[in-house]
Amino acid sequence: MRVDPSVAESVSIWFRLLTCHARMLAEIRRGIETAPSRRPTITLARFDLLASLHRRDGSALSSLSEALLVSAGNVTGLVARAERDGLVRRAPDAEDRRVVRVWLTRKGRTTIERLLPIHAEHVHRLLEGLAPLERRRLRKTLGTLRGRLEDAGLA
Amino acid sequence: MRVDPSVAESVSIWFRLLTCHARMLAEIRRGIETAPSRRPTITLARFDLLASLHRRDGSALSSLSEALLVSAGNVTGLVARAERDGLVRRAPDAEDRRVVRVWLTRKGRTTIERLLPIHAEHVHRLLEGLAPLERRRLRKTLGTLRGRLEDAGLA
Repeated sequence: MRVDPSVAESVSIWFRLLTCHARMLAEIRRGIETAPSRRPTITLARFDLLASLHRRDGSALSSLSEALLVSAGNVTGLVARAERDGLVRRAPDAEDRRVVRVWLTRKGRTTIERLLPIHAEHVHRLLEGLAPLERRRLRKTLGTLRGRLEDAGLA
Repeated sequence: MRVDPSVAESVSIWFRLLTCHARMLAEIRRGIETAPSRRPTITLARFDLLASLHRRDGSALSSLSEALLVSAGNVTGLVARAERDGLVRRAPDAEDRRVVRVWLTRKGRTTIERLLPIHAEHVHRLLEGLAPLERRRLRKTLGTLRGRLEDAGLA
């Protein structure tokens, strides 16, 4: 099978991106799910939910589904279980009762604020092996790529 | 919450990598699962299995699990279903009967060789918006990162 070199380069980039993603995700999951000095076990999915609300508290269920890159059904279950455990609460939007918004409780905020720095340090340890210039360029190029993928209407 | 700028940069890199990965994967899945002029529907998981065997036919089940970054149980089911559909066959290793190896059938080989170029072109369309220099650097940096993650014993 003959392949155009630039096509082969693209496939190689994708393959490396897949591998880096999988390895980092496995490490980060392990870090989140076994972080020390926490009582309740937190799953990576729940961490992502709380972190997303920490960035934008009161998000609509529908926008959480997009932000977390999971299906609407999965978000509903995830939020219901987090509510049962006292980490978030759901309430209809004041203006449009059809929209359900999700808020961190005090317990949810305490939990995520304890975990975020541990998570950030962990991510940093995985990436700090790259040289400063490589890191800057990687961040910039991934930003460009993300923009291209958005422009192309891909989601 | 005060955060060291280089830690914040790492978190931003990871977040961008997550987003690019999710968007590309969704597009690639759509491309694979709806590729034109194919009769049998192929899932992305099955595509990955056949592509992995195309690179290294006769892989052991255990090494497929690693290569595909899925659990041993999932690989067993995936391989069993592909065998049922006549795409692969399993056979014990000639030297060590405890090792199960997986081989492409003629039908499996035809299927993957028809899909690989479609897949490669699709991946290329997603990445060709990057400038040639950016592409080269991105590939190199992801290769460096992959090596670092391997060196650190992360899998």
